[in-house]
Amino acid sequence: MKSITLAHGNGGEENGRLIEELFYRHFQNKILHQAEDAAVIGKGALAFTTDSFTVTPLFFKGGDIGKLSICGTCNDLAMMGAKPKYLTCAVIIEEGFEISALEKIVLSMKYELEKNGAIIVSGDTKVVPKGSVDKLFINTTGIGEIRYKGISANALSLDDVIIVSGSIGRHGASIFLEREGMEFSTALESDCRSLWPVVEKLIEADIDIKAMRDATRGGVAAVLNEWARQSDICIEVEEEKVPISREVKGVCELLGFEAFSLANEGTFILAVSAQDAPKALELLRSIEASSMAEIIGEVTTGYPQKVLLKTPYGTSRFLELPSGELLPRIC
Amino acid sequence: MKSITLAHGNGGEENGRLIEELFYRHFQNKILHQAEDAAVIGKGALAFTTDSFTVTPLFFKGGDIGKLSICGTCNDLAMMGAKPKYLTCAVIIEEGFEISALEKIVLSMKYELEKNGAIIVSGDTKVVPKGSVDKLFINTTGIGEIRYKGISANALSLDDVIIVSGSIGRHGASIFLEREGMEFSTALESDCRSLWPVVEKLIEADIDIKAMRDATRGGVAAVLNEWARQSDICIEVEEEKVPISREVKGVCELLGFEAFSLANEGTFILAVSAQDAPKALELLRSIEASSMAEIIGEVTTGYPQKVLLKTPYGTSRFLELPSGELLPRIC
Repeated sequence: MKSITLAHGNGGEENGRLIEELFYRHFQNKILHQAEDAAVIGKGALAFTTDSFTVTPLFFKGGDIGKLSICGTCNDLAMMGAKPKYLTCAVIIEEGFEISALEKIVLSMKYELEKNGAIIVSGDTKVVPKGSVDKLFINTTGIGEIRYKGISANALSLDDVIIVSGSIGRHGASIFLEREGMEFSTALESDCRSLWPVVEKLIEADIDIKAMRDATRGGVAAVLNEWARQSDICIEVEEEKVPISREVKGVCELLGFEAFSLANEGTFILAVSAQDAPKALELLRSIEASSMAEIIGEVTTGYPQKVLLKTPYGTSRFLELPSGELLPRIC
Repeated sequence: MKSITLAHGNGGEENGRLIEELFYRHFQNKILHQAEDAAVIGKGALAFTTDSFTVTPLFFKGGDIGKLSICGTCNDLAMMGAKPKYLTCAVIIEEGFEISALEKIVLSMKYELEKNGAIIVSGDTKVVPKGSVDKLFINTTGIGEIRYKGISANALSLDDVIIVSGSIGRHGASIFLEREGMEFSTALESDCRSLWPVVEKLIEADIDIKAMRDATRGGVAAVLNEWARQSDICIEVEEEKVPISREVKGVCELLGFEAFSLANEGTFILAVSAQDAPKALELLRSIEASSMAEIIGEVTTGYPQKVLLKTPYGTSRFLELPSGELLPRIC
C-alpha cells in the first residue's frame, strides 16, 4: 500500500496497522504502547488524550460537532477512570463559515463541558481558504484526574463479565441516514453523550472495574477485539443479549451494515469481575444514560485473542475486527 | 461581520476579536483569560497548550509540517518557562496521501521531539475523503513542566528591556516565496527551530525573565502590541536595531509586506529587567540559535498600550497590531 485509503481511518484493522507501523514505530515509548483510550502520565495521576473531529454533517439528530468534540475527549478520559478537568480546543475553519453556526457549536461545547465539570484553558483558531477544509474541524485534547487506577485493555482475565451500557450503533446509523438525506421519519438519533457522570457513580460504588471503553469508530467489534488481543483472552458474547434498537436493525438490514461495527458516541463497554457484575448492572440501569445496560458476555479461555458471538440456537461465529472503508467522517 | 474571513485567522486584530467575542466569552474562566502562549494549570506546575498546523506547502526550506508541529507546540511551552514533556498528535489525512511523505513527516517530528526531550503519548488518526482537507493537517498539544514561574504577558513594567533572539520574518517570507514558486535562488529559509534548549540556558543562568513569546502569526508586531495592551505599558523600539536579513528586506520591499508582521517559528522576543539585559544578551549570543540576538527597545510610560518604532533620524511611528488577511496557512 503506497498511499492512504479511507480504510486507514476506520478504527479497525487497517487503522490499527497504520498506527502500529508508522506512529508507534517511530514515536515509540512505554506510555504510547499501552494503547489505551488515554495516556497515563504523572506517576499515574493524570490521563491525557486527543481527538480531532471531522464529522459531517456538522449538526445531526442528537448533537453537533461541538457536543461531539467535548463528549469524545471527555469520554476517553472517563473510560480511564479519570475526571475530565482541563481541555484545549483548536478549530480549523473554512473561510466563509457562518459565525452564527460557529457560535451555536461553541455553545454546545460550553453546555457539555459543564456536564463534565471541565473547562477549556487554551485554544487555537486557524482560518483556511475555501477548499482547504470542508467547513470546520475541531481538535480537543484533555487532561483528567485519575480517580480509579488500573483500568486497562490489558487487564481482562478469566470469568470477567462484559456489560454494554446501552443499545449499540446509534451514532453511526443516524449519521449515515442524515448524510444520505434519507428521511425515514425515524426516531433514531445519535447516542452522543458525556459518560463521566455514569463512570463517577461506578467508581463511588467501588465496582471492581477491569476495563472500560466507549465504542466509537469500529464500534463494539473493535473494542472487544482489541481487548481480546491486548489481554490475550477470549471474549464470548451472547448475540441476542446485545441491545440493538429496531431502527438500527432496520438500517443494518437495508444497507448490509453490521451493528457491531457501527460507531457509538455515548455507549460504552465495561469489563468487571464476575462477583461485581450484578451490582454494576443494577447501578447502570438505575441511571438514565445507561438504563438499557445488559450483561452480554464473559471472558473465557476458548479462543485466545478472539471474540466469539454465540446464537441462542447453539451456533457461533467469530466477530472480527472491522476492516474496509466503513463510514468515513462519523466523528 | 456574518461569516468568517481569512483575517479572522491572522494572529492580529480580527483574530483577537474573534477569540475574545466568541471563545473567551462563552468558555470564560480565569486560566483562559490570562491569554498566554500556554495555560498554567496544576497549581502553577504545568503548562498546557495546543496548535493545529495547516501550513502549505508541507515541505519547505528549513522544515516541514512535522518539524513545525513539534516546534510550534514545544515553543509555546518553552515561552512559559516550561520544559516540554508529553505531547499528543492528531492527524487529519486526505485519502490518497503518499505514505512515504507521511513517514518523512513523522521522522521530522521524532527528530524534533528529541531536541526537546519530549515524547508523544497519545494520538488520533483521521482519514477524510478527497476534497475534505488539503493533504494533511496536524494538531499537537503539549504538557510542560514549569521550571521558571511568573513569566507573563501581564508582567512587563517600566524600564524592562526588550530583546529579539534573531533576525525576523524569515518563516513568513520563505513560505510565501515557496508557495508562489518564486525561484529567487535565495539563501532565505524558515527559522523553524525548537527553543527549549535556549530557554533552558536562560533559566539556568538565573536571568530575571518577565515575558517571552515566539513571534509566530502576526509576527513581532503582534507580540509587542499584545504585551503593551496586557501590561498596560508603552514599548519603544529602535527600528534600526531590529535584525532583518537582506532577503527578508527584499521580499518586503518587493511585495509591500511589513517585516514586523511576518511570522517567525524559531525567533522569540524576551523582556528582562534592565539590570539583567547585558547578561541575557551575552548568553543568547553565545548560543548558535540566538547568535544574532539584539536589544531592540524598552518599556516606557510614553504611550500606554502602544508600541512606538523610533528611527535614527528622530522620527517615530506606532507599530500597529497587524490586521487584514496577511498570509493564510503559514503555520
